[in-house]
Amino acid sequence: MENKKRTIELKKVENLIVKDLNKEKTISSLYRHIFKSKGKKLRARLSLIASSIQNHKDRVKLASVIELLHTATLVHDDVVDNSETRRGAKSINSLWTNAHSVLIGDYIYSKAFIYTVEVGNLKIFSELANASNEISQGELMQLGEIGNIKISLNKLKQISYYKTGRLFEASAITGAILSSGSKTYIKNIGECAKNLGILFQVKDDLLDYSLQSSTGKPSLQDLAEGKITYPLYYAFKNASKSDKSFFIKCLGNKKALENKVLRKEVIQNISKLNGIKKTEDLAMLYHSKTLNCADKIKNKNIKEEMIELANMALNRNK
Amino acid sequence: MENKKRTIELKKVENLIVKDLNKEKTISSLYRHIFKSKGKKLRARLSLIASSIQNHKDRVKLASVIELLHTATLVHDDVVDNSETRRGAKSINSLWTNAHSVLIGDYIYSKAFIYTVEVGNLKIFSELANASNEISQGELMQLGEIGNIKISLNKLKQISYYKTGRLFEASAITGAILSSGSKTYIKNIGECAKNLGILFQVKDDLLDYSLQSSTGKPSLQDLAEGKITYPLYYAFKNASKSDKSFFIKCLGNKKALENKVLRKEVIQNISKLNGIKKTEDLAMLYHSKTLNCADKIKNKNIKEEMIELANMALNRNK
Repeated sequence: MENKKRTIELKKVENLIVKDLNKEKTISSLYRHIFKSKGKKLRARLSLIASSIQNHKDRVKLASVIELLHTATLVHDDVVDNSETRRGAKSINSLWTNAHSVLIGDYIYSKAFIYTVEVGNLKIFSELANASNEISQGELMQLGEIGNIKISLNKLKQISYYKTGRLFEASAITGAILSSGSKTYIKNIGECAKNLGILFQVKDDLLDYSLQSSTGKPSLQDLAEGKITYPLYYAFKNASKSDKSFFIKCLGNKKALENKVLRKEVIQNISKLNGIKKTEDLAMLYHSKTLNCADKIKNKNIKEEMIELANMALNRNK
Repeated sequence: MENKKRTIELKKVENLIVKDLNKEKTISSLYRHIFKSKGKKLRARLSLIASSIQNHKDRVKLASVIELLHTATLVHDDVVDNSETRRGAKSINSLWTNAHSVLIGDYIYSKAFIYTVEVGNLKIFSELANASNEISQGELMQLGEIGNIKISLNKLKQISYYKTGRLFEASAITGAILSSGSKTYIKNIGECAKNLGILFQVKDDLLDYSLQSSTGKPSLQDLAEGKITYPLYYAFKNASKSDKSFFIKCLGNKKALENKVLRKEVIQNISKLNGIKKTEDLAMLYHSKTLNCADKIKNKNIKEEMIELANMALNRNK
């Protein structure tokens, strides 16, 4: 029942976003391309769930703001990671140029803030400006730690929170603020969403080292880009001297990682050294944290929706 | 007298901006590098002039917001234009990477919005969100018109307004709103700043085809990047068939434009075909528009400061 409601509302979010077509051909082509591929809209859904505590007229608009902000970060991320695809389609930087990605990202970002003004609540504005700032901090931290195999677990967790958990948290908090949720409700659903976001990121890191349903092989993209994520972090902690030099040799070595035999060896080593198992444990930990926070939410429907999202995040295969 | 005040206030803007150093080394290094080179801070000055109509406690903070927004667009522009230098120092993308420029640009941009929340005025927020959006539109329009020698004068003017005039306008409008200026005052100083910004851009376009005091030669950067600006637009209108094919051959041809003889020929042709003269006339037009608007401002000090800025913009050589 609630799911059906959300599906209808998310469709309204989509419509609100694509309704706005710029008269400029360059702008409208880029914009259309970006929003042609539908993402999961998890963050917009979170905002809608959190704001469903009361029926405020701007619920869909706020969820659209969240989706726009998230999309802007993705478009910029594709420049950062030099990605060729996004949501199953070619990325803007691969179809057009980096310049187009940077500018249309800025366009979408500021559009999100224009809608936020229409919602007209300074607390919501504050939360979103802070979240946007912390997302960029998370990305910059990650960039600064590229190739640093000695990264600490704390730093890894901070990065997961800033780059992913933070927007989940802000989506829920602003939704709750919009519909005049109590302080306790705002706090609980915010915490719940934050842990859900980190769980989501931990699973993302795991999936990068797992067999992909689409290709039948792990992508190992993080390793190739020199990013240390949880599976490698844990495996490295248990690694012998020779295992360590093997991982160091692979880290950031895109070229070498094209080799099938080497890729297989990476997966085996990560697994053998408990990298997968320990990351799965971490995912379980954030799953149970999410459930604990969800349990504190009094509204039964909202609680159930949050639990459903947590289970989905834990069990997802892509 | 007023100038001395502004100098002191602009120093406070600088201090407020650099005070905020992130604990993350990557972030603070990038941030420090960007704000080590002092720009002209024309837009921050405009904001201070406009808000000087009353002594509001957040005048310096708002001027800092403007400077942060402007700087964020510059950092992103350097990715768009692949620039190696900025304000006389190496650009972030040349010292670090495009990824760093994109992310630290986002960081500075969202920091501007965090300060805007602290100023706490939704009308100011609205103006800045809209201006930011239109700046990116201007940049995207320009990107879409690269290599298009048939660009219309209207489109060129629209680009000058969006990419430069718009933030000048918003700086003045928000300054005036902050200090509770009357509707008439907001309108007049906004119009005045808008024309000043366009004048500033027209002069920029002229300087690209003029002898540079630093290097003794014109940079011809716009031409090399395939951008049609006023001098080329006007010259092309008066060009013979063979002149036209000459310009088309040069447009976007970075490699060829390294040749000294060719560069000299470009300058001579642009000048011979009235490209410089007509652009100077356009600068004069926006100069007088700026003065006309300034004349409508009742506050004598503010009027004089605006006139001074207009004269400076018209006569500047770099």
